[in-house]
Amino acid sequence: MKKLSIVTAILIGAALSLTHAQDLKPIQLKKPDMARKGTLMDALSKRQSIREYSGKMITDQELADLLWAANGINRPAENKRTAPSAMNVQDIDIYVMTAQGVYLYDAKKSTLEPVTAGDHRAQISTQPFVATAPVSLMLVSDLSRFTRGDDASKANLAALDAGIVSQNISLYCASANLATVVRAMIDADKMTPVLKLKPAQKIMLNMPVGYHK
Amino acid sequence: MKKLSIVTAILIGAALSLTHAQDLKPIQLKKPDMARKGTLMDALSKRQSIREYSGKMITDQELADLLWAANGINRPAENKRTAPSAMNVQDIDIYVMTAQGVYLYDAKKSTLEPVTAGDHRAQISTQPFVATAPVSLMLVSDLSRFTRGDDASKANLAALDAGIVSQNISLYCASANLATVVRAMIDADKMTPVLKLKPAQKIMLNMPVGYHK
Repeated sequence: MKKLSIVTAILIGAALSLTHAQDLKPIQLKKPDMARKGTLMDALSKRQSIREYSGKMITDQELADLLWAANGINRPAENKRTAPSAMNVQDIDIYVMTAQGVYLYDAKKSTLEPVTAGDHRAQISTQPFVATAPVSLMLVSDLSRFTRGDDASKANLAALDAGIVSQNISLYCASANLATVVRAMIDADKMTPVLKLKPAQKIMLNMPVGYHK
Repeated sequence: MKKLSIVTAILIGAALSLTHAQDLKPIQLKKPDMARKGTLMDALSKRQSIREYSGKMITDQELADLLWAANGINRPAENKRTAPSAMNVQDIDIYVMTAQGVYLYDAKKSTLEPVTAGDHRAQISTQPFVATAPVSLMLVSDLSRFTRGDDASKANLAALDAGIVSQNISLYCASANLATVVRAMIDADKMTPVLKLKPAQKIMLNMPVGYHK
């Protein structure tokens, strides 16, 4: 009877969790603000690693600009990106973690697509500051998009491509007075199911983003 | 007698080559132009890979700005850079190849330090367009600067760090209407002696830079 209760409780929990996941709706991002001020030289001069964040959510416009800067489409006719990638395979996807849930940035549709409901930011790392950022970006390479090369070669290209995207994020944050840091220490065992990754998808970097506390 | 002539010729050649190398003087770079116009959003929107270069040398100011943007010091009191690096080990060095020779960018002194005299750009790759750029940047990681981690971990961090520096270069070029492309295919056997690299130094990327033809 006790066992049954636990099983029942788990089933109810799973059902609730599923309902919750289904509640997570796609988010249409605003159009990036191409008139945003701030020179490149200024962004480069302000670029720094910041690990202290106010819990306040960044604005919808900042989130839209941040993601477009990171790896958005800057040449729609050719579906080409702000970040180059090896052989233009566009292996880097950006997962966006907030208090509401986990989303996948769809650059073509300019949307956030629901992945997993709920706040999973504390599972990214044992470093407490990481969970305090209102937005945490996960840069994930889909190694299956590389059509040639051995595993070491693919891992090398994935890291190069992730570094490129990360610097777009670092510079956007510097320019917009947002705080971020590039982190490579990630609890992949916890994050892989949260991000619902396929075996060929590898988490490369995490970048918490928020206002500087 | 014939053998002796060849040996003599080789010795004379080596002596001439040595003289030439000694002729390569350090170059003091101009101060980066922090008032340079061009927004970050504009640089991101113009970012593209370009493989056709005019042979014309870029200006001294552009070269100075390019290298500072790439991996210059933006916080002199702390010796910190425009590009973050894993554990701030600053593993990425930039070698600058021109028709005159090969130099190492010294970010602290803001100089180009002589490495090897002569035009070695045609040895970077079998792709003919590579040698047509008046400046070719070689991004090299010194893996000995990583004090922990196994070889695969160091290789991963080196690639992330190189990707970061490369995007600074890509964005500077986009902003300044210079052409560049990120290249990972490099003839390391030929380049290692030309750059006079230690075994722990690994060539990560090549970026030819010039005016768009």
